[in-house]
Amino acid sequence: MNLDTYLVTAEAISAGRSTVEIVEAAIDGGIDVVQLREKEMSARKRYDLGLELRDLTREADVPLLVNDRIDLAAAIDADGVHLGDADLPISVARDQLGEDAIVGRSVSTPEAAREAERRGADYLGVGAVYPTDSKDTDPEGTEIGLDRIRAVAEAVEIPSVGIGGVKPDNAAAVIETGADGVAVISAITAADDPAAATRALGAAVERGRE
Amino acid sequence: MNLDTYLVTAEAISAGRSTVEIVEAAIDGGIDVVQLREKEMSARKRYDLGLELRDLTREADVPLLVNDRIDLAAAIDADGVHLGDADLPISVARDQLGEDAIVGRSVSTPEAAREAERRGADYLGVGAVYPTDSKDTDPEGTEIGLDRIRAVAEAVEIPSVGIGGVKPDNAAAVIETGADGVAVISAITAADDPAAATRALGAAVERGRE
Ligand code: NI
Repeated sequence: MNLDTYLVTAEAISAGRSTVEIVEAAIDGGIDVVQLREKEMSARKRYDLGLELRDLTREADVPLLVNDRIDLAAAIDADGVHLGDADLPISVARDQLGEDAIVGRSVSTPEAAREAERRGADYLGVGAVYPTDSKDTDPEGTEIGLDRIRAVAEAVEIPSVGIGGVKPDNAAAVIETGADGVAVISAITAADDPAAATRALGAAVERGRE
Repeated sequence: MNLDTYLVTAEAISAGRSTVEIVEAAIDGGIDVVQLREKEMSARKRYDLGLELRDLTREADVPLLVNDRIDLAAAIDADGVHLGDADLPISVARDQLGEDAIVGRSVSTPEAAREAERRGADYLGVGAVYPTDSKDTDPEGTEIGLDRIRAVAEAVEIPSVGIGGVKPDNAAAVIETGADGVAVISAITAADDPAAATRALGAAVERGRE
């Protein structure tokens, strides 16, 4: 699974554009993973949107994950879910979605990373790497910094993705810690040109590996 | 399925008592159905609570339903789910929980009642019967009145349960419209004696049938 560039959707901070439009642009820019989040939408609206995103991402061969809701992931035939501390346990996702599903877990410490790996997570979202504007719009509210990103990446065998305040101009530093990719919301959703922003993010990840 | 008295849980309006304590008392008072709702709790907390409620209700042979979350219902082996307009479609619940699961649907008009029946709902929650204090704590915010409860009950073959502002002293009138039962939150959760309140509600339902 290629986790280089990972988009978390948020129509509320997409500068008036629809999430469908943003995801189309991100696919055009080479996005590697899309997570349907949309905390402000009802489950019913996320379901309708999810069916559209499933068509788009399947055509582009891009994995589609769903934040929090295992039932929604199953209903739209997503590739998996992303879970946080407040969500259902990894074991429930595994039971309901099967062995082949991708199950991601948010963590912010090496201890939590090892526990998530032990419980069967396929990858980790780690953050917030950098300061972020809002707990409401970003999954991770508290800055943990690059040293902690490195400590998490070194603590586990599964891949990790840095999230929180990541942009094209600071993404290479995240990869240099040993993280396998970067996840963003506003760096793509709020960009003037989301396709160009996605390409810039991918280029930054490549630079970080050099 | 006996829908005479139906409790929707809300620890936030349980006068400092736990939902486990309230459900134990309601079972003691003869409650017929329990729905785990708890809009203020994280999915993880509802999961932990749901496992406890599953033990209690199974021992008492009382059906346990889960509000909104099909994944949570499956995870705790609940008997079914209760869905509203903003939740996933009935068809998704049926697919994921199976033919034997109980799937309830909130409606407030005869047209919506017929559509829910056509889509496979097993029962309807209809309301708000009477004025309620808060949209946040009661599932149905707008009073529709007894005539509409009667119109819904007459529009469908599946059973209907009146919800919203129902108390022991006004429950008989709900049953007299043709509704099959009454659902309450605060009439039980906020009662000085939740077991006695449940018994009083059951007695009122009996009176309404005479
Ligand atoms: Ni690694």
